[in-house]
Amino acid sequence: MIRAVLLLSGGLDSYTAGAIAKAGGYELYALTVRYGQVHAREIEAARDVATALGAVRHLELDVPLSKIGGSALVGDGVIPKDRPLDTADIPSTYVPARNTVFLSLALGWAEVVKAEAIVIGVNALDYSGYPDCRPEYLRAFERLASLATKAGIEGRPLRILSPLIELSKAEIIRRGLALGVDYALTHSCYDPAPDATPCGRCDSCVLRARGFREAGVADPALVRQRQ
Amino acid sequence: MIRAVLLLSGGLDSYTAGAIAKAGGYELYALTVRYGQVHAREIEAARDVATALGAVRHLELDVPLSKIGGSALVGDGVIPKDRPLDTADIPSTYVPARNTVFLSLALGWAEVVKAEAIVIGVNALDYSGYPDCRPEYLRAFERLASLATKAGIEGRPLRILSPLIELSKAEIIRRGLALGVDYALTHSCYDPAPDATPCGRCDSCVLRARGFREAGVADPALVRQRQ
Repeated sequence: MIRAVLLLSGGLDSYTAGAIAKAGGYELYALTVRYGQVHAREIEAARDVATALGAVRHLELDVPLSKIGGSALVGDGVIPKDRPLDTADIPSTYVPARNTVFLSLALGWAEVVKAEAIVIGVNALDYSGYPDCRPEYLRAFERLASLATKAGIEGRPLRILSPLIELSKAEIIRRGLALGVDYALTHSCYDPAPDATPCGRCDSCVLRARGFREAGVADPALVRQRQ
Repeated sequence: MIRAVLLLSGGLDSYTAGAIAKAGGYELYALTVRYGQVHAREIEAARDVATALGAVRHLELDVPLSKIGGSALVGDGVIPKDRPLDTADIPSTYVPARNTVFLSLALGWAEVVKAEAIVIGVNALDYSGYPDCRPEYLRAFERLASLATKAGIEGRPLRILSPLIELSKAEIIRRGLALGVDYALTHSCYDPAPDATPCGRCDSCVLRARGFREAGVADPALVRQRQ
């Protein structure tokens, strides 16, 4: 089987991206990075999702981006709530170079396990405007990867697969449900309560709620929580 | 002053690259990554070098590339000794995606401290043939950086400075000595004895010895050690 390293956060997008890659015949090596995010609940979700996806391995790496700082997601500043999402502003939840760090780690592991692709669940429609979620960024990383590794210069370049890049959140959810994804396992909130209840007002909660609403289905994570 | 993030290993090259950048007017933010290397002696050397360079800050980050594996430098396999250096083979000391991970972390920190450059001490002449030490690789990372960050899309792109890229080891040493670099502080060996004595036979020791010989000076680290 063809192998792929899946960047797995425990959220809705990376689960769906993994399910699409699996349906496409890839054997999944799931990689989750604990980077000092304040919403560590998503690490537990990532474990459940890795199991649900039948990942061959699930590697968790501690990379303390919190020591670099510069983001509300690692404790520098306050998570914005009820923020308008139709602006071009990059919010304080942006983590400097996060996807570049994640893709670099995935690149190293991909070379070791002889994977032919990295799967990443970024999307450029319903997102917070982060620069490292755009197609031109991903193409530049793919070009870099072909030059960076022993595998690349030996003629085994790596592909960066971003199957959600042009989908809306509602389309992502519909695609996932058709593939049997169990969204009750996922966690999206940037600022959950101590009991892991989503705040409902951060960008991630708002985008998720809008996605389920537009997809015409209830969010199973919220249904489960109310029970 | 203009700021630069310096990737600092504790070896000869990164110290010299830092000294050149400092002479060029950069204020240095030194970044050292503990990635699980078996020769952890170089971390202590990095601290001494950061002080000698007058770095404004010295950030040490733990990033366990040893969990990814795939290299003799992180404990997978044996460090090769007395290896011919005129082959095109990539040796077992190659660490998958190491420079990409290091540059990514530097990219994040550069954005946070508003640095305009990253300084990296790679050189493409007297080196072990690692793919991520070549000029075309560094250009691809610079291109990636311009797309990856908020700073990049706001018109403050980052430069990747590799002042040693076309120098031989002897030329690096001569340049460093002219700038007052104290090579007694540095550590290069991949496989030191428990008391930190260099093995003298790994690629790094062999390249270093050849460099000092061709530069016509004694290696002050070895002189100090013999005393």
